[in-house]
Amino acid sequence: MTRLIESAGGDEARILEEGQKRLSALVCHDDWLPEEFARPHPDHYQQYLLYCDPLERFSVVSFVWGPGQTTPVHDHTVWGMVGVMRGAELCTEYAWQGQGRPLMAGRQHVLKPGEVDLVSPRIGDVHQVSNAVPHLPSVSIHVYGANIGAVARHVYSPETGEVKPFVSGYANAALPNIWDRSAEVRASLAA
Amino acid sequence: MTRLIESAGGDEARILEEGQKRLSALVCHDDWLPEEFARPHPDHYQQYLLYCDPLERFSVVSFVWGPGQTTPVHDHTVWGMVGVMRGAELCTEYAWQGQGRPLMAGRQHVLKPGEVDLVSPRIGDVHQVSNAVPHLPSVSIHVYGANIGAVARHVYSPETGEVKPFVSGYANAALPNIWDRSAEVRASLAA
Ligand SMILES: [Fe+3]
Ligand SMILES: [Fe+3]
Ligand SMILES: [Mg+2]
Repeated sequence: MTRLIESAGGDEARILEEGQKRLSALVCHDDWLPEEFARPHPDHYQQYLLYCDPLERFSVVSFVWGPGQTTPVHDHTVWGMVGVMRGAELCTEYAWQGQGRPLMAGRQHVLKPGEVDLVSPRIGDVHQVSNAVPHLPSVSIHVYGANIGAVARHVYSPETGEVKPFVSGYANAALPNIWDRSAEVRASLAA
Repeated sequence: MTRLIESAGGDEARILEEGQKRLSALVCHDDWLPEEFARPHPDHYQQYLLYCDPLERFSVVSFVWGPGQTTPVHDHTVWGMVGVMRGAELCTEYAWQGQGRPLMAGRQHVLKPGEVDLVSPRIGDVHQVSNAVPHLPSVSIHVYGANIGAVARHVYSPETGEVKPFVSGYANAALPNIWDRSAEVRASLAA
């Protein structure tokens, strides 16, 4: 992903086209996410940072919805890719029509494991995501064009069109150490 | 550090000169390292990965020596910077003189908080580092020109010159989440 971002520069369409293939390949396999980054919270959905680019050009986050849980209607202000890995998620798209006017609801679709949805201010940025399975958590892996937990963005009241500032943060103080390749290097030396 | 590595390309002398200033500024302040990355092990020194560059061009590691603890005599095969933050460390330099010949001991010096030592195959790469305070742990922050825990390097027997393969790995499965700037962004929005 680092190499893609560096070679694509700011070409969002190319990032999304290429990135979608890579994210789909990643979430087709549900055998790599440590359990502590797939843990639902009893009261609300969780977002766990897995990786952030050192220049904050992108971030990778696992989202976990318990049964019945949903996000507020929100935007991102940057490109984003939502890849479902476990369970299923209901995405509802909205269009903002101005302060004081209700949001217009758009396409609704259910994402299954391996499927990827795209958002951005260019292609449609306001949506709501809910767990679409009744009794189990759903887990998806998201990639965004910024350090998404630190982005000043917005939540919307669908009935009134009211817009409020939103900075999501992250639920986790510790990231997975994906860099300890020592066992593999030792094995290759012994071979 | 990412910007320095990108602008310096492979210019090791420039990386060490600039990097030494930044690392010294970092270890002059002992108020930022979470306690779990400063915890000594009762039996041996510890190394905790704090950050790894996504292209493995550099890594940042905290080393913790309990009282009486020491590294083996070892090399790095890449450039490295050792910045002491807490306690004091005794560094002993060695020169390898070939298989079957004892190592030649070189300069010995004690590093105090804020001081930085440099290693590399170009400027001298074989050394041993020990805790130089008798009753407390010492903590230093190291920066290396690779994902150091996954580098195939060597330990040396100083008496016989015997060389053995060495892949250090890391003690930690979880990295600090240094990316949650949400509180600061929320505060700036409220201001
Ligand atoms: Fe979203
Ligand atoms: Fe060393
Ligand atoms: Mg869409």
